[in-house]
Amino acid sequence: MLDPIRLKILGSGSALPNKNRFHSSQLLEVAGRQYLIDCGEGTQIRLWQCVGRTSRLHQVFISHLHGDHCLGLLGLISSFAMLGRSNNLEIYSPPGLEELLRPQIDFFCKDRNFEVVFYPFSPYRPEVIYEDKTLTVSTLPLKHRVPTCGFIFKEKEKELHLNRAMLDAFSVPISAMKSIKLGADFVDERGVVVPNAKLTLPADKSRMYVYCSDTIYSEKIIPLIENADCLYHEATFMDKDAQRAKDTFHTTASQAATIALKANVGKLILGHFSSRYKTIDGLLDEAKTIFENTSLATDGGEFTF
Amino acid sequence: MLDPIRLKILGSGSALPNKNRFHSSQLLEVAGRQYLIDCGEGTQIRLWQCVGRTSRLHQVFISHLHGDHCLGLLGLISSFAMLGRSNNLEIYSPPGLEELLRPQIDFFCKDRNFEVVFYPFSPYRPEVIYEDKTLTVSTLPLKHRVPTCGFIFKEKEKELHLNRAMLDAFSVPISAMKSIKLGADFVDERGVVVPNAKLTLPADKSRMYVYCSDTIYSEKIIPLIENADCLYHEATFMDKDAQRAKDTFHTTASQAATIALKANVGKLILGHFSSRYKTIDGLLDEAKTIFENTSLATDGGEFTF
Repeated sequence: MLDPIRLKILGSGSALPNKNRFHSSQLLEVAGRQYLIDCGEGTQIRLWQCVGRTSRLHQVFISHLHGDHCLGLLGLISSFAMLGRSNNLEIYSPPGLEELLRPQIDFFCKDRNFEVVFYPFSPYRPEVIYEDKTLTVSTLPLKHRVPTCGFIFKEKEKELHLNRAMLDAFSVPISAMKSIKLGADFVDERGVVVPNAKLTLPADKSRMYVYCSDTIYSEKIIPLIENADCLYHEATFMDKDAQRAKDTFHTTASQAATIALKANVGKLILGHFSSRYKTIDGLLDEAKTIFENTSLATDGGEFTF
Repeated sequence: MLDPIRLKILGSGSALPNKNRFHSSQLLEVAGRQYLIDCGEGTQIRLWQCVGRTSRLHQVFISHLHGDHCLGLLGLISSFAMLGRSNNLEIYSPPGLEELLRPQIDFFCKDRNFEVVFYPFSPYRPEVIYEDKTLTVSTLPLKHRVPTCGFIFKEKEKELHLNRAMLDAFSVPISAMKSIKLGADFVDERGVVVPNAKLTLPADKSRMYVYCSDTIYSEKIIPLIENADCLYHEATFMDKDAQRAKDTFHTTASQAATIALKANVGKLILGHFSSRYKTIDGLLDEAKTIFENTSLATDGGEFTF
């Protein structure tokens, strides 16, 4: 049974937060590890609310240096310090964030037993910026008012499943199984070769999650995100405010749906809603006309895939 | 009819916030003006929630430079900028805050049409740091792990009420009334002096609100806050954690109540509760044993006096 990837929405609002929609932040859980994506004001409040006092979070990915995407970092680091955290915290962001935050980290979070390590990345070309045994994280350059990247979380290729019945039939010893899972054929004591395909079942699919905020509508990203299992795309505005979306380098819900359709993703999640809309049902309607499998992000909401 | 002073609690938690108790912040409303006291993370969220997008807030008073009392400033300033604010924002705090925040204000809040003006005060001696036509704000040096002051908001002496019946009896012209309200006697056309006391009724009482967070128990503050109409005092801990309170330079609920009793205040509000307590009814019980008119602060709660 494949463990689902869990995406917890910590903040789904845009520039002006309210008690129901905090600034942008998400927690992605893959194979027991947690990755924080953006960290607007109040992120720690939602984090404690949604997953408790976690010690499994080691990487933070910041899409761009607008306050609504990173002003929660100081509070989060402060609280980690108070909670006795000892593991370093890694922050990946466009250049400049360390220069802005370091004086405050040194002042407000003096008594901490971990380092905050910044990893600036170029916001202009797609590249792998992080890798562990489970996945890679690549940047997805976007077009916003300041240098901005989305992120592509892609699971690494997985081991093949063993076909237990066939292993028994060919009397394969346990010592050979690790290499068979990685694709090797089996050679028995008499030198007979059993092809790997006879002994294994296909590996689980490597899943892909794409985070895309903030950006003007841009089809340039499509080749990079094709067939993603799940795409989060900002949808600040409705169609009637399309000009405002363009002027402010944001996207409408139907534009986000168009990206989802053209990139053939499995699921689309919309977020970063403008506070001008009393209800956001209209954004969902507009998106669903184009891409049916669309959902709206809500603070505290969870998606699995 | 005397307009009540309104105190809105924006955040009532201590170091580790949660969705019900944000970091410290309060909004005091006196005669149509608003004063912000401390500004922890999420203050803007509570502010929009409690009073909407206000333009009547011009002064912020920061008690000390711990993150849970000032890390909401950047977000608040950012949002004021987005909302098109044009009036300057004044920030009163112990020294050092401007040096910490200025680079971030310049970076994250570039597009603003107002200035953020810092007024550092000495945290070591009581002094009037702000004054307008309605009130004065004085510092109340406290004893915490870093330089810290509480604040005393005191209404100025008010004008005397005119005794309409007596004014008519002595045929006092309208032109003389302003000086009578300020305490002058009246001299009629024939040179007869009518004493002020005959023409006026006592002025309304000048009310006093005291904000006291964070501090170890200290009776030194009592002479400065005697007879306050309302005292907010931090009460981070219960009696059973009194040693922890002392070690961390905080106060227990019953110590706060003792201060209220000895200073003969009208009402006591407790706040800044440690997140270690599942329920805080115990703090109220311990305080009420000593000072009956005690209430617990809750986020979004309002007190009038």
